[in-house]
Amino acid sequence: MVRLKFSITLNYQVLDASADFILNFQPAFTERQKVLNEELQINQDNAAVTQLTRADGIRYIKLRAGTGPLSIFYSGTVDIDHYQEDPDSLHEMQISELPIDVMPFVYPSRYCQSDELTALANFEFGAMKPGYHRVVAIQQWVNRRIKFQIGSSGSTTTARDTLLGHAGVCRDFAHLMIALCRALNMPARFVSGIDYGADPSLGPTDFHAYVEVMLSGRWYLFDPSDVSPTMGLVRLGTGRDAADVSFATVFGNVLTQSPVIEIQAVVDEQNGFYLPVRQQNALSSSDNFVSTFNASYGK
Amino acid sequence: MVRLKFSITLNYQVLDASADFILNFQPAFTERQKVLNEELQINQDNAAVTQLTRADGIRYIKLRAGTGPLSIFYSGTVDIDHYQEDPDSLHEMQISELPIDVMPFVYPSRYCQSDELTALANFEFGAMKPGYHRVVAIQQWVNRRIKFQIGSSGSTTTARDTLLGHAGVCRDFAHLMIALCRALNMPARFVSGIDYGADPSLGPTDFHAYVEVMLSGRWYLFDPSDVSPTMGLVRLGTGRDAADVSFATVFGNVLTQSPVIEIQAVVDEQNGFYLPVRQQNALSSSDNFVSTFNASYGK
Amino acid sequence: MVRLKFSITLNYQVLDASADFILNFQPAFTERQKVLNEELQINQDNAAVTQLTRADGIRYIKLRAGTGPLSIFYSGTVDIDHYQEDPDSLHEMQISELPIDVMPFVYPSRYCQSDELTALANFEFGAMKPGYHRVVAIQQWVNRRIKFQIGSSGSTTTARDTLLGHAGVCRDFAHLMIALCRALNMPARFVSGIDYGADPSLGPTDFHAYVEVMLSGRWYLFDPSDVSPTMGLVRLGTGRDAADVSFATVFGNVLTQSPVIEIQAVVDEQNGFYLPVRQQNALSSSDNFVSTFNASYGK
Amino acid sequence: MVRLKFSITLNYQVLDASADFILNFQPAFTERQKVLNEELQINQDNAAVTQLTRADGIRYIKLRAGTGPLSIFYSGTVDIDHYQEDPDSLHEMQISELPIDVMPFVYPSRYCQSDELTALANFEFGAMKPGYHRVVAIQQWVNRRIKFQIGSSGSTTTARDTLLGHAGVCRDFAHLMIALCRALNMPARFVSGIDYGADPSLGPTDFHAYVEVMLSGRWYLFDPSDVSPTMGLVRLGTGRDAADVSFATVFGNVLTQSPVIEIQAVVDEQNGFYLPVRQQNALSSSDNFVSTFNASYGK
Repeated sequence: MVRLKFSITLNYQVLDASADFILNFQPAFTERQKVLNEELQINQDNAAVTQLTRADGIRYIKLRAGTGPLSIFYSGTVDIDHYQEDPDSLHEMQISELPIDVMPFVYPSRYCQSDELTALANFEFGAMKPGYHRVVAIQQWVNRRIKFQIGSSGSTTTARDTLLGHAGVCRDFAHLMIALCRALNMPARFVSGIDYGADPSLGPTDFHAYVEVMLSGRWYLFDPSDVSPTMGLVRLGTGRDAADVSFATVFGNVLTQSPVIEIQAVVDEQNGFYLPVRQQNALSSSDNFVSTFNASYGK
Repeated sequence: MVRLKFSITLNYQVLDASADFILNFQPAFTERQKVLNEELQINQDNAAVTQLTRADGIRYIKLRAGTGPLSIFYSGTVDIDHYQEDPDSLHEMQISELPIDVMPFVYPSRYCQSDELTALANFEFGAMKPGYHRVVAIQQWVNRRIKFQIGSSGSTTTARDTLLGHAGVCRDFAHLMIALCRALNMPARFVSGIDYGADPSLGPTDFHAYVEVMLSGRWYLFDPSDVSPTMGLVRLGTGRDAADVSFATVFGNVLTQSPVIEIQAVVDEQNGFYLPVRQQNALSSSDNFVSTFNASYGK
Repeated sequence: MVRLKFSITLNYQVLDASADFILNFQPAFTERQKVLNEELQINQDNAAVTQLTRADGIRYIKLRAGTGPLSIFYSGTVDIDHYQEDPDSLHEMQISELPIDVMPFVYPSRYCQSDELTALANFEFGAMKPGYHRVVAIQQWVNRRIKFQIGSSGSTTTARDTLLGHAGVCRDFAHLMIALCRALNMPARFVSGIDYGADPSLGPTDFHAYVEVMLSGRWYLFDPSDVSPTMGLVRLGTGRDAADVSFATVFGNVLTQSPVIEIQAVVDEQNGFYLPVRQQNALSSSDNFVSTFNASYGK
Repeated sequence: MVRLKFSITLNYQVLDASADFILNFQPAFTERQKVLNEELQINQDNAAVTQLTRADGIRYIKLRAGTGPLSIFYSGTVDIDHYQEDPDSLHEMQISELPIDVMPFVYPSRYCQSDELTALANFEFGAMKPGYHRVVAIQQWVNRRIKFQIGSSGSTTTARDTLLGHAGVCRDFAHLMIALCRALNMPARFVSGIDYGADPSLGPTDFHAYVEVMLSGRWYLFDPSDVSPTMGLVRLGTGRDAADVSFATVFGNVLTQSPVIEIQAVVDEQNGFYLPVRQQNALSSSDNFVSTFNASYGK
């Protein structure tokens, strides 16, 4: 198990009478990721704050703030007890095996135009044996071709663009890997998190984006940008791509400062808490089985 | 109320040992749309068939068929008791009013890059008074600029492409209208259906695509291609765009014939069933209120 | 006539052993634009410098510079005696009237995908009477829709992107106007220049980009960004779009500073030199007639 | 030497009172390609016909035809005496070596967005030794990845699209190869022709598109679709990409039939005429040296 202690500080300046925020920076609740303790502070006493947890454990704060400085501070501790599996035992699922609610993760999305990458995915990976190792091959192909370069992409950059531009940040790596997996009919989704153990040359700790692919009925973790061990990833949000997942969506006239994030691993070997390290095993931090899906797009 | 009686015939030729189908051509169950009777026939006795109803009433058939001809016949009768509202009473909702599960319908999607149309939407509609009439203005703007032209678009055509190409079919009209609504922060979704009363010059009856926009907590019907009265639309599927909604998604090596669809209105004035006609009122055929949303993207 | 006196200073830092430059910042020689005097200084004595004048009067400097600071200073004085014509007398030319060498300016190019804007151009301008006033309508349509916004576009931004983004700088205005003109079969080209009399709120004097459209056998001046009177434009380069025309194309590892440009109008009413002002007449500063074309793409 | 005898029949139906055509189907005149004899027949006696030869030997027919059937028949015989060179002796040229008029073939164009493929080109070919063999590597890379598939592309398909779609026809192969060469600063241009010896499984003889790359001061032939020996290619037109080069550009309301083309090789070994065969040598059918360029974009 890993125990991660972290804090997040967000600072804004609201320029109009009010502004709306949808925040998704709290750790999700899953069978495998438990929140030991947490604390939330918002400097505006009169802000309207609603805390929500979606059926899948993803948590949101809806916030209407007034003019002036807005400061949000969160700190928490989570325990993650990864499900581990022998990679050789995992299979890619047939369409007939997939729950209907997983299908949106097979279909193309805003930033992951898998329908346009079918020929490429088949050219590069079509002859490989399906399974966990094929997913690793996709991950490594993306990692080898794309250069991690802050400032090389923007809010409209898609998997297509990243493929041609050969550069991006973590979200671009994730979009390209997701698009290639879906092009081969594998369910793949976008996960936001914060990561322990990133290469410090990449700058201060920041929000991170990575990938989950469903194999043998479970979502497994992959980080195509490979900046840290997947074992050190705290799950915040999931969605089809970055259009669905943002630590903060702001509606209104607001100045934004860079978030300040700190994270540390608590090592307590007697009680089974170790440093996050790279693993040969396949890792999952989501719930047990696909039958728990119960998605609805609203009627 | 309207009572619509219709049948759908789908014919395929499966070329390999087996092929998977996900079908979504049965009328959805909503508070306002009731299925009076229905019948389903599949010519392959050994096909594996699973029928599913999502929490929001959308219905799917998962089907694994074997080599050879596959013929699927459905017929049914539905009663639709539209919720009607005075257009002047409807307001565009603030972000803070929206349930978290509606947010995906505000965000951009594969074919509706609303994030790239924000400047255009504000240029054209930004100065208008928010509300139902602004949505009608968007619908009419799309209808006036886009020419209905079979063959002018394909499976990768997006709202951007349609805007530039000035031509499309019903799904393209829907994508462009959805993108413009979302660019103004209105939840908008893609609906598939079959329609009674379409202009026969557009060819034989076919599946149709249209739009719902959430106003005052309810999804209201709009048909930017304006080929028939919205009152005559039978709801099949809903989603963020056409990537999520298809009457048939086929995985495998399969030849496809054009669907054959017949629809007629049952008029029985004594019992309150009338011909579908164009209405001044705002119409909704979905459930009552947004609080019934309980979406989940799977954990 | 106008007499414009100006200077241009370009500063670079060559980081490797050498770097190649293709410079196009000297005023072109045309029948209507005469260079009275000029001076060129380059701080690297050993730089290999070749000065070239193309058959159409466009001038280039090919320069191979060595490691270290590179400073290029140019100053010159030009007299421009614009050809003026009554707008009502100008007609759009038929394809059969156009010299073969003008055809590339009717065809689409890198940044001006006129083939994709045909439907839009016909929707907006198809019903208008052909002629100079239709070109002005296009210019004003572009000017009204696009917001001048430094930083809103980049080196890969095309006419399509500008149309959707509703923002750009002078080159983006020019690309969109050119694409719309070509979509209606009018020859249109991209011109680089420096301008006298720009709105100082747009920042210090800089290189400018504008448009020429061929009407009645002559290239007429249009500035869709409308930052200054077209009478105050000094012609440097022309091409199909910005891919062909740059004041400096750099091949090598080089740091670039912002150019420093100064321009003033010499008023000498006794000798017929006046301040550049906006004109009702159509203005041309290029050579007389299309028969002087003798283009070659090299065999 | 090769001697090729061929005929081309074009059939149209002009629906309005008149229509304009710009035709470019006659063999170009170059030092290496001589027209022995030729014949042109047009069925409309009153059609206005102008024949033009550009300074680089490319030939055009401007034609204004009237209502009704239009039939154009051309037959001719050309001798091609290819310049042959040892591939090992050819070098990629430095920018400083290139004539200014060749620069447009280094810059991006409508269908060849080389500026967007720089990272890819450097990833795939950046480490290779510059020279003829690097160009062959690009040609083979394109040929291996792209599947020749009639109907897989259209008039707006670009090099970017072909790269992602992994399918195309000859013009798409040419665009992708050109874009990759330019991304490495090599001048590359689009050539239209007719080819002797194509694989008959690709359908009846048709117009063909291929590539020339300038090495050591001369344009060398490459056919990325590799459907026939480059020795059997008759040169018709050249340009930056397909936007500039078409055997027929039609302005007006016209129905078009497929062209009918026949070609045969005249073998006369006593006089030095052999069958076109694949060669290890580098081949050129254009004029001698870049100093003959005298391009002008019109002033």
